[in-house]
Amino acid sequence: MTTIKKPTLLVDEKKCRENIRMMAHKAAKNGLIFRPHFKTHQSLEVGQWFREYGVTAITVSSVEMAQKFSRQYNDITIAFPVNVHEMEDINHLAGQLKLNLLVEGVETASHLKKHLKQNAGYFIKIDVGSHRTGVDPSNIRLIENILEEAELSSHLTFKGFLSHAGHTYQCRAKQDVLNIHNESRHIMGMLKQQFISRYPDLIISLGDTPGCCMAEDFGGVDEIRPGNFVYFDLTQVAIGAADYDQVAVALKCPVVAVHKSRKELVIYGGGVHFSKEALQDPILGDVFGQAMKEKDDNTWGVAIDGMIVRRLSQEHGVVGLPDALADKVQPGDLLTILPVHSCMTVSCMQNHVVV
Amino acid sequence: MTTIKKPTLLVDEKKCRENIRMMAHKAAKNGLIFRPHFKTHQSLEVGQWFREYGVTAITVSSVEMAQKFSRQYNDITIAFPVNVHEMEDINHLAGQLKLNLLVEGVETASHLKKHLKQNAGYFIKIDVGSHRTGVDPSNIRLIENILEEAELSSHLTFKGFLSHAGHTYQCRAKQDVLNIHNESRHIMGMLKQQFISRYPDLIISLGDTPGCCMAEDFGGVDEIRPGNFVYFDLTQVAIGAADYDQVAVALKCPVVAVHKSRKELVIYGGGVHFSKEALQDPILGDVFGQAMKEKDDNTWGVAIDGMIVRRLSQEHGVVGLPDALADKVQPGDLLTILPVHSCMTVSCMQNHVVV
Repeated sequence: MTTIKKPTLLVDEKKCRENIRMMAHKAAKNGLIFRPHFKTHQSLEVGQWFREYGVTAITVSSVEMAQKFSRQYNDITIAFPVNVHEMEDINHLAGQLKLNLLVEGVETASHLKKHLKQNAGYFIKIDVGSHRTGVDPSNIRLIENILEEAELSSHLTFKGFLSHAGHTYQCRAKQDVLNIHNESRHIMGMLKQQFISRYPDLIISLGDTPGCCMAEDFGGVDEIRPGNFVYFDLTQVAIGAADYDQVAVALKCPVVAVHKSRKELVIYGGGVHFSKEALQDPILGDVFGQAMKEKDDNTWGVAIDGMIVRRLSQEHGVVGLPDALADKVQPGDLLTILPVHSCMTVSCMQNHVVV
Repeated sequence: MTTIKKPTLLVDEKKCRENIRMMAHKAAKNGLIFRPHFKTHQSLEVGQWFREYGVTAITVSSVEMAQKFSRQYNDITIAFPVNVHEMEDINHLAGQLKLNLLVEGVETASHLKKHLKQNAGYFIKIDVGSHRTGVDPSNIRLIENILEEAELSSHLTFKGFLSHAGHTYQCRAKQDVLNIHNESRHIMGMLKQQFISRYPDLIISLGDTPGCCMAEDFGGVDEIRPGNFVYFDLTQVAIGAADYDQVAVALKCPVVAVHKSRKELVIYGGGVHFSKEALQDPILGDVFGQAMKEKDDNTWGVAIDGMIVRRLSQEHGVVGLPDALADKVQPGDLLTILPVHSCMTVSCMQNHVVV
């Protein structure tokens, strides 16, 4: 067994593989292309597990990640608006593999027309309501302008419309997630109807983990790109997209101080390990992590009631100390803590230990 | 000039050196030991600049950081409660240099008594009101118990009392910061009075950047350990501890999409670059960064009104687009953005470019 001296990211391989298997099965059952987002795990090892469940095409959110996974996959969508400063790297990647890009403005299409030297596909990013990126779906003129500009390039092929309903992350009830999912399908379906005759191969690609986990109806959708489901986290549990026992990553952190009088303990494990993302719980307030009962093999069982990470500074975490444990926890003990947002925690930690 | 393709952390050397000079001067003027905290910059290059202003002793917040800076400094306080899992590394460091540790419980003192094999100093951490770590200053029995246990070790030397008034970060008025500073001095002064006859060499060490920047009266204090002042950030500006033009770090981020209709633009620059720490502005709501007017030499001038980073996801930042700039900003432009919390941003970015 691994000796743990400082905050260490654990990946439960069994849970992780089950999450992959579940989503691959759901995609297959619904006749969908399964193009998982790899920004959550960012790991070649986990990337290899996906191959074992039949995955051959992936999504990433940066050119850097595409470069990393180009060793493993030759069909990659960079689901991030084209950054025109990275044209050299994009051309290199497009020469190496089947690359898809994201466009949401005429300027970018125009830039690609001039500077793309290799064949690549592109999706038009549609804003289905999260208002982060994407074209307003009612702005047909802008869509036409992008298509027109891109058609002047001999290297660009229109692949279809792509959306990410990130606003499902604010939902705390299944029906709210389903409403957003169905609205996204409706919006994307209208676009498909409008453009399919001119582009008979266009596809509709949807993205978010809550929608992909909780919805059963994928009518009109051709491709799904969930990412977070590979590990899940406390946010997905709060949304209702996963149960505690599906969460496949945890941070193991040493206890460095116990303060019985204020019913708190301090761990070596702070914002540089967890990230500073918090969940707002209606009763508990800010939640930065949840301590779990440990098992002998470094995996974890159920949540420990009241053992919540309440505050984080750079290296410190302050954790609630339930009365029942006040005389049991000692400096040197190791706590196993589920993160609020696994994508961010994995990015902070960079390395993990498989258990 | 450096070609910037993706989010890049810029350090303005001139501003940074001026910040160091200012604090070194203030410490000297007040007869204080200046033991700056290096967790903010974590850079050997910046560490070298400190040497040029007479610094010979430093503070860090992990054993790992102590190892890194042991190449440069031979007098280091690890201002984090001893993690008993790192005894081997602590012994190695203590054999190499003058090392000070932090103790806030009898169990840890007892562990050091058994396992410390080299000479080291230790401070008792006192909670002056931030309630993160530290002994309640009224708990004299616990302080006595720690001293008693540590005295049984032939390797441990009591150095004094150390505090970090982290609650100044919640202040938004100078008088509030001064009240906390003076209360800390009062609490620490009482302890000094009580123990100085038995430990004539004991010192009082205070830590936070807002207090060290804004206070003029350091009576009773022997050492200061501010860290953030080396770069400052939007939080220090909000507290009133610094002006915009003292902030010595910024993230330069490419614009990847412009959405005039919702008065927003999207940058390549997200939570993995800035960290997800936000300031709560009474008018603007969550603030994750502030765009600044750029100068030709990659440095920056004044804040651009209304150009606030409003939301962050993993790689995306959504920035307010003022009407006056709506027709000027294009994908491919580079924005220079001050971070909310420089310690966290630096930790996310790991590398910087000096301008």
